[in-house]
Amino acid sequence: MKFLHTSDWHLGRQFHNVSLLDDQNAVLQQITDYLQQHPVDALVIAGDIYDRSVPPTAAIELMNHFVEQVCGELKLPIILIPGNHDGAERLGFASKQMKESGLHIISNFRDMVTPIVLDSDIGPVAFYGMPYNDPELVRHHFKQSVSTHDEAHQHLCEEIKKSFEDGTKNVLISHCFVDGAIESESERPLSIGGSDRVSHEHFVDFDYVALGHLHQPQKKGEEHIRYSGSLMKYSFSEQHQKKGMTLVELDEGGFKSATHIDLKAPHQMRIIEGELDEILSQGKTDPNSEDYLLVRLMDKHAILNPMDKLRVVYPNVLHLEKPGMLIGTEQEMAVAKLARSEADMFRDFFLEAQDAKLSEEQDKAITDIIKQLSQQ
Amino acid sequence: MKFLHTSDWHLGRQFHNVSLLDDQNAVLQQITDYLQQHPVDALVIAGDIYDRSVPPTAAIELMNHFVEQVCGELKLPIILIPGNHDGAERLGFASKQMKESGLHIISNFRDMVTPIVLDSDIGPVAFYGMPYNDPELVRHHFKQSVSTHDEAHQHLCEEIKKSFEDGTKNVLISHCFVDGAIESESERPLSIGGSDRVSHEHFVDFDYVALGHLHQPQKKGEEHIRYSGSLMKYSFSEQHQKKGMTLVELDEGGFKSATHIDLKAPHQMRIIEGELDEILSQGKTDPNSEDYLLVRLMDKHAILNPMDKLRVVYPNVLHLEKPGMLIGTEQEMAVAKLARSEADMFRDFFLEAQDAKLSEEQDKAITDIIKQLSQQ
Repeated sequence: MKFLHTSDWHLGRQFHNVSLLDDQNAVLQQITDYLQQHPVDALVIAGDIYDRSVPPTAAIELMNHFVEQVCGELKLPIILIPGNHDGAERLGFASKQMKESGLHIISNFRDMVTPIVLDSDIGPVAFYGMPYNDPELVRHHFKQSVSTHDEAHQHLCEEIKKSFEDGTKNVLISHCFVDGAIESESERPLSIGGSDRVSHEHFVDFDYVALGHLHQPQKKGEEHIRYSGSLMKYSFSEQHQKKGMTLVELDEGGFKSATHIDLKAPHQMRIIEGELDEILSQGKTDPNSEDYLLVRLMDKHAILNPMDKLRVVYPNVLHLEKPGMLIGTEQEMAVAKLARSEADMFRDFFLEAQDAKLSEEQDKAITDIIKQLSQQ
Repeated sequence: MKFLHTSDWHLGRQFHNVSLLDDQNAVLQQITDYLQQHPVDALVIAGDIYDRSVPPTAAIELMNHFVEQVCGELKLPIILIPGNHDGAERLGFASKQMKESGLHIISNFRDMVTPIVLDSDIGPVAFYGMPYNDPELVRHHFKQSVSTHDEAHQHLCEEIKKSFEDGTKNVLISHCFVDGAIESESERPLSIGGSDRVSHEHFVDFDYVALGHLHQPQKKGEEHIRYSGSLMKYSFSEQHQKKGMTLVELDEGGFKSATHIDLKAPHQMRIIEGELDEILSQGKTDPNSEDYLLVRLMDKHAILNPMDKLRVVYPNVLHLEKPGMLIGTEQEMAVAKLARSEADMFRDFFLEAQDAKLSEEQDKAITDIIKQLSQQ
């Protein structure tokens, strides 16, 4: 029995004011191509389908197209839950009416405890979806005194386990932050501090746990508790992450294997570091010159319109940093330069406002203050 | 063969900053109660399900609940189209996946030409949904040179008629402004002028045409071309309109009858006219004192805090007009009073700005100008 586990699609996301929809479309096409060539029993999406609760129309149309291809043409069930970026009620509209066609959107606790049971070569496999939640929701719905995400997930797992049946394998889909996992910049923080962390121990009784929220593929605590990682890179901090989906295999004994299947967005997100001339010269022969780039210019002198120059060879430079301007003695010089310049400006201002020059004493006082401020 | 025709629900609408959701919920409950007691073959909703393309979450939940009751529990098909207030792509998400459960959302031209065919005691009945559209959409999609709503609808009807089959009755669902119909204040204008008007003649070949957009129940041109009217009153101009839905009966010969079924919102919208004392006294025994009211105070003298006084007996006064202050000689006096006061203000201003009084000539000039402006 095989299924694909994916998560964190963030359809409709903008990155530095660039729409990622074409890239997302291309990667979804890779998923449908894979499914066509390698039949599996189901596709699981562990939350953050869209980038926000009211997604742009084009993102909805893209998702609609994907669903028609997978559920409609390939006749393959999709089981998904909302993540913290999705609007659960919006996503869940008419979800009961979609079930017969194989589209299962589990968007509330009521549906959480009724699994989607698929018959397979190893017997029935029950998929439980735990829609994204916070302690307050769990407290309110189950009248339980839980105050942390950990307690909430512990309780939800206990609720689900009441529905376990002998001879049935159990898969859980959840969107949460399992303790100790590696974070990226593009995950919206669930909370400040550590109160959002969930122990992997609540999950060990399932045969597989398909997690979403963290963008790097990884296992947590046990081989069968896994993040598939996001559909594609969504921040420069993810530049070295391998993106893809997880092919999960279960057998009579439960979890058998998890295999990473690569997905590759047309534009990669990466960071280039170097002096302008170097970068311009390597860009001319760079086969991936269309990638989305953060450029760190290491030149130690000021450069006129560096963005325009870079975009001649790298059209998709999205962000520019100039750490070269602030290294070693250069940094001190820059500060000194700046200090002189600010003092000069103050002298101009004083002359204009008071119609008199600064006295030597005044000049020293203001220069000292500016120097102190620059060193803070 | 019987079906219910309704339209213009506008779920999620606010009226003078009051949410109508509880009223809408109550009226939808009347519909499900009716359907439970009087089984029909289908429920048709001719557009404007929601009040805007991105409806509030609570409106989506209300619609979801209704759909679960009707499609889920009563096993009755719902056939609906988006109106000009709805977002067609948003409403149409996963519509293919809902069809098997009996929820048919026809949100694009591709689906328009494939009818939903219901088997009935009089043989097959084909329901065609024409999603709300404008000439530009039709021009773009069908590569037709249409420039008015009338031409667009003519073309769409021709496209649909190509799918007509012998021995099948044909029902059209459309959201448009059929010529000569009576308008209310709460319909969002489709366009300025008359270019939004559609002739009823394009529709005569259908056995029934279920129209939406106009809020007053009415037939257009023929007995079988009808507006059901809106779910409830959505403006004070609709105070005398009878709200409800239309029970349509077809037989072997096609259209047989259309019957108005009353729906009654818990709060009516109405206008009360009179002097404050009268209104306060009648309010004490008014059994419908909770209605949503526009009050026209006919008193000819100023009243301190009339809204507070009215709301003691009529808690839902939403709008107040004081035409009594501007009747007959009173009106002239008010203008004169205002003119004196404005001239006084100008004299103050002139004194302050010029440090001098207006000369007699200047005073006359400014007074004349103010008088002239007041009379415009």
